[in-house]
Amino acid sequence: MSDNSFGHLFRVTTWGESHGPAIGCVVDGCPPRIPLSETDIQPFLDLRKPGQSRFTTQRREADEVRILSGVFEGMTTGTPISLMIENTDQRSRDYSEIAERYRPGHADVTYDMKYGHRDYRGGGRSSARETASRVAAGAVARKVLAYVLGEGVRIRAALTRIGDVAVEAARWDWDEVRRNVLFCPDSGVVPLWETLLGEVRKAGSSIGAVVEVRAEGVPGGLGAPVYGKLDSDLASALMGINGVKGVEIGDGFAVAGLRGEQNADPMRMREGRVVFGANHAGGVLGGISTGQEIVARFAIKPTSSILTEVPSVTRGGEEVQVSTKGRHDPCVGIRAVPVAEAMMACVLADHALRHRGQCG
Amino acid sequence: MSDNSFGHLFRVTTWGESHGPAIGCVVDGCPPRIPLSETDIQPFLDLRKPGQSRFTTQRREADEVRILSGVFEGMTTGTPISLMIENTDQRSRDYSEIAERYRPGHADVTYDMKYGHRDYRGGGRSSARETASRVAAGAVARKVLAYVLGEGVRIRAALTRIGDVAVEAARWDWDEVRRNVLFCPDSGVVPLWETLLGEVRKAGSSIGAVVEVRAEGVPGGLGAPVYGKLDSDLASALMGINGVKGVEIGDGFAVAGLRGEQNADPMRMREGRVVFGANHAGGVLGGISTGQEIVARFAIKPTSSILTEVPSVTRGGEEVQVSTKGRHDPCVGIRAVPVAEAMMACVLADHALRHRGQCG
Amino acid sequence: MSDNSFGHLFRVTTWGESHGPAIGCVVDGCPPRIPLSETDIQPFLDLRKPGQSRFTTQRREADEVRILSGVFEGMTTGTPISLMIENTDQRSRDYSEIAERYRPGHADVTYDMKYGHRDYRGGGRSSARETASRVAAGAVARKVLAYVLGEGVRIRAALTRIGDVAVEAARWDWDEVRRNVLFCPDSGVVPLWETLLGEVRKAGSSIGAVVEVRAEGVPGGLGAPVYGKLDSDLASALMGINGVKGVEIGDGFAVAGLRGEQNADPMRMREGRVVFGANHAGGVLGGISTGQEIVARFAIKPTSSILTEVPSVTRGGEEVQVSTKGRHDPCVGIRAVPVAEAMMACVLADHALRHRGQCG
Amino acid sequence: MSDNSFGHLFRVTTWGESHGPAIGCVVDGCPPRIPLSETDIQPFLDLRKPGQSRFTTQRREADEVRILSGVFEGMTTGTPISLMIENTDQRSRDYSEIAERYRPGHADVTYDMKYGHRDYRGGGRSSARETASRVAAGAVARKVLAYVLGEGVRIRAALTRIGDVAVEAARWDWDEVRRNVLFCPDSGVVPLWETLLGEVRKAGSSIGAVVEVRAEGVPGGLGAPVYGKLDSDLASALMGINGVKGVEIGDGFAVAGLRGEQNADPMRMREGRVVFGANHAGGVLGGISTGQEIVARFAIKPTSSILTEVPSVTRGGEEVQVSTKGRHDPCVGIRAVPVAEAMMACVLADHALRHRGQCG
Repeated sequence: MSDNSFGHLFRVTTWGESHGPAIGCVVDGCPPRIPLSETDIQPFLDLRKPGQSRFTTQRREADEVRILSGVFEGMTTGTPISLMIENTDQRSRDYSEIAERYRPGHADVTYDMKYGHRDYRGGGRSSARETASRVAAGAVARKVLAYVLGEGVRIRAALTRIGDVAVEAARWDWDEVRRNVLFCPDSGVVPLWETLLGEVRKAGSSIGAVVEVRAEGVPGGLGAPVYGKLDSDLASALMGINGVKGVEIGDGFAVAGLRGEQNADPMRMREGRVVFGANHAGGVLGGISTGQEIVARFAIKPTSSILTEVPSVTRGGEEVQVSTKGRHDPCVGIRAVPVAEAMMACVLADHALRHRGQCG
Repeated sequence: MSDNSFGHLFRVTTWGESHGPAIGCVVDGCPPRIPLSETDIQPFLDLRKPGQSRFTTQRREADEVRILSGVFEGMTTGTPISLMIENTDQRSRDYSEIAERYRPGHADVTYDMKYGHRDYRGGGRSSARETASRVAAGAVARKVLAYVLGEGVRIRAALTRIGDVAVEAARWDWDEVRRNVLFCPDSGVVPLWETLLGEVRKAGSSIGAVVEVRAEGVPGGLGAPVYGKLDSDLASALMGINGVKGVEIGDGFAVAGLRGEQNADPMRMREGRVVFGANHAGGVLGGISTGQEIVARFAIKPTSSILTEVPSVTRGGEEVQVSTKGRHDPCVGIRAVPVAEAMMACVLADHALRHRGQCG
Repeated sequence: MSDNSFGHLFRVTTWGESHGPAIGCVVDGCPPRIPLSETDIQPFLDLRKPGQSRFTTQRREADEVRILSGVFEGMTTGTPISLMIENTDQRSRDYSEIAERYRPGHADVTYDMKYGHRDYRGGGRSSARETASRVAAGAVARKVLAYVLGEGVRIRAALTRIGDVAVEAARWDWDEVRRNVLFCPDSGVVPLWETLLGEVRKAGSSIGAVVEVRAEGVPGGLGAPVYGKLDSDLASALMGINGVKGVEIGDGFAVAGLRGEQNADPMRMREGRVVFGANHAGGVLGGISTGQEIVARFAIKPTSSILTEVPSVTRGGEEVQVSTKGRHDPCVGIRAVPVAEAMMACVLADHALRHRGQCG
Repeated sequence: MSDNSFGHLFRVTTWGESHGPAIGCVVDGCPPRIPLSETDIQPFLDLRKPGQSRFTTQRREADEVRILSGVFEGMTTGTPISLMIENTDQRSRDYSEIAERYRPGHADVTYDMKYGHRDYRGGGRSSARETASRVAAGAVARKVLAYVLGEGVRIRAALTRIGDVAVEAARWDWDEVRRNVLFCPDSGVVPLWETLLGEVRKAGSSIGAVVEVRAEGVPGGLGAPVYGKLDSDLASALMGINGVKGVEIGDGFAVAGLRGEQNADPMRMREGRVVFGANHAGGVLGGISTGQEIVARFAIKPTSSILTEVPSVTRGGEEVQVSTKGRHDPCVGIRAVPVAEAMMACVLADHALRHRGQCG
């Protein structure tokens, strides 16, 4: 048991605080002989990197990853892959206030409840900065998936809603996602979001969002009944991203309003394989992949760091008003998009190896 | 790693198929010297038991639990507790059709994709019958919680929505939940649901639902950052219940529409302790409990076994129409209510021991 | 983490006390479509069964195993296999003395130190009776090995020493092992052991022993560097058998007296494969199997239950003399032989699946 | 499951190869608020460091440890502690020969059997260099033990035998161990060993050894029955050290020759506590600590790198003679002494937290 590890056969252990010397992760269980170098990882880190638009935090991090072990002559060896990202923008400032005053909506108060001692600089371990390690591990997971399941596996995420403005399914265009800094698949919505975010930022406020992540080309048979369910592990993976408060697979909460006939995904044969006439299930039945696209979605709360004063307390028990200044993402959902892809990749890589272990 | 185990220090391993001789579980890691007997477990199994109203399957199971180990002279010994429930109503019937034809929405097709061999009688391992083992384990978890955290911990679930008919928060009455067979906290809604379910059943159809589960009296500090988050484990636990397609903590998906000010839970001091002015977070911040009520919610799809014919295929690749007759719950959400409580109890018991292990 | 589970992908969880209603285990992770029935398991239990000669305890147990789940139409399904053995000879007696007085060399005192409460009847959970569950799991592991690695894998153990009388390597005959009730591979030694054991039993004493276990036909490549070493897992498995105080791989402690030249296993090519000119390593280099025979050995202490009075104390802190009467094995090493085979089989089955998971 | 992690609640994951940029480990599960800095760790690394005498490899490594996370303002935070040691003496040389020719007794051949690809520079992951990470983790474990169990816990190891020359129990002096570079507790033996090692080194050979490790001040009750046995975990930990082929607890293999009366550790009361009149058991009964000194011992084979030519093969299947030149320890047992202490500390720290988790 490790509270900082994820996965079983493809196992990721992350470490590091926002303002320590570095953050990183150890990826254990990676199959040998997979070509891997920093250039396979860096592009994904670059997508998550802060400071890329006026809608994300202005902290400047190079987020340059280094492979410290587990790769030799350009190929994985099967031994643990240690990845490290140095923290370069540890802007020197006075943390005495944040050390004492609990920021509402942040983990400050709960860390103190649990540990009685915390690295408060920039949120320490609870900083979204930790997700850079996940993105790095996710890049390795993609290589594993290509190696074990074939090049057909494709994992993509998009921001589908900010506040009350959602993309339209009919206008969904995956190519569009990488064209705008908001990871939006609907070009018509981009200007609306830009306006909305501009207004939110100006008000010193923040706003919630929804991210959708899909995996194509995953064969049927991954996952397991009962406690090793693919969707159960996905739910854990996505709920574990900072600020996430809800997770859906396939139709998600909409199933509550459906009748059996409406929810059934009919099956037919095509070229000797089972195909489905719909995908209400989101690619998972009984915890096991169906061979359809795997579809997951999550809601992420508005950034808790806002200018508006909120009643709070200090470590010493004094009642105060807290207003959080500084470099913050007005909508953390944006930078959660590459993290969502990474977590999906890690879950699938783990299940691909688990399936191979048990079923050959 | 075990695909049939849940939890780390309070660890439950379930086994058994719907129509085998018995089902059961092994509960490992239970602290010693906790009073425990079958009478602590049976009442919870009775709540989940089929055949208790016209709205659940008419299968008749006594669901009598036996403690086979780990308890001596009425107290837990700290060694594994083996619980067994015999399957008594294994109605002899012809399964040849179900063996060959994949029931849409069921795990039939994915089990065959994974294992190439399955116990198809009554759904085998993917039957909701497996949840009886969870309920039994959950009863033990409640005893652990009372022993470790004190008698103040109270875990309760209710059905809050069937189809489009939801309970009203203002009319929520916990006492009402045990008074009706639908686990409904709003007496005004009960007759509406009865009418709706009667109609659904008559039509040979089924319908989706939402369950809410809450835990009072949980101290702050349970859970852990990153991958050992309390809400992450809850999401996994609830998504792992048969038919669940979405999970929320606190405000859940509604957070997507909120601004930072709306989502912040202000803090004040009362009698030397931190109290919150709201609970949008559902009792968890940064993966760690705040001391507030823990609030989770999940959506469960309509039972896939319906009379209406749905296009499907056989194991041999023949296209067929499948209509499922037999004894089925028109709304599996009803009997999921005691299962929801059990999973919440198991997650909390595990985290209570984990916290004690690391932080004393 | 479960203190009563062993293995990762092939994972065994045992439960049950000596004088409870039953003992058993859950085997999780078994590949699907392996033919399995009680008749594959029972012969191994029969070898371990008490009461088969005057040199083992006279307790009479049928040790009949029942498969409660995970097997359908004669084949494993990939879901957990629940195995149960009822305790039939729970001779009613007065346990008040054993409840209060700590038997020297037994776990009585340490269970009370740890748990403050224990099932003292017949040793409860610390009884050698628990090893029946291991033997049952081991029988399943053998089937897995045959299925995954081929029929060539052969696991055999023998008793190689009782007291100061050891078998001679030159006279080792595997066929002899099943011909005598002492699992002795050297027919010349059998009468010496019989005389020795007769004398020990008559004196109300007991005696230590050494068991050797070997696995033929294991391919190179199983195991992993650092903490997943094959020999590390074997050491854990064998040291975990009741009464074991030392474990060796290959030359074992004798390596301390060797020079590098004496310890080197030279390599040559034969029919395109690497073969070794010696096996000082016992089939494991750097934690990974070499393809040679895997050779392990362990020493087991004399049964602690003896007639001779030994100074001891009671739970209440009174000083007493304890003499243990009753039905005991004068040499627990004898019945440890089938247990040794079972543990070797479990370790290898687990590593075979782990290797397949990571390396394909 | 991670093949590079050790422990459950106090969990260490190591990474890194001999000639990569660095090695290190992540220590997860450490309790918060324990004072910790590099100066708590460095002295133990210095003891293990190569190049300290003419009897160890002349590789020059500073082995300077850096804490990258998990410590703030001089105290552990409860989040993962990342420790890194840079490899400074990566002497540039031609590895083409070692890349192709399997060194007998080394893991070269088995790594290729398993992975088909390995970092062969200096043994890569199978290098004894990996044990530096263990020593670093062990230093943290000592702090945990002092914090959780009190300052009375003392873990010490010594070299007790080289070749056929063993220390005498009667002349054992712990103070002597740190006075000589051979970690020898018997001053009379030191010159004999020096002569022996000089001769071995001159002959280009190597020699085996025995290490003993003891833990004083461990309370009764640590460990668990069946598969969580304290001695089972110790056996795994010690067998996992490079080159170890045998492990003993207490009397070890000598128990095979004992009668029940000789092996019994009698109990008496002293100042209200149970005390034992002997310690044949080595401080563990039924897998649980007795409160006596915990005594373990292991045999380590002669270094496989010797000048004498040994028949071997190449990756390509050519038969060759291999003679290993270079900077090697003639007796790896010497530098295994601080590693033995580290592994004992890690096992105990893990069990201390596990016991607290389950039993409070």
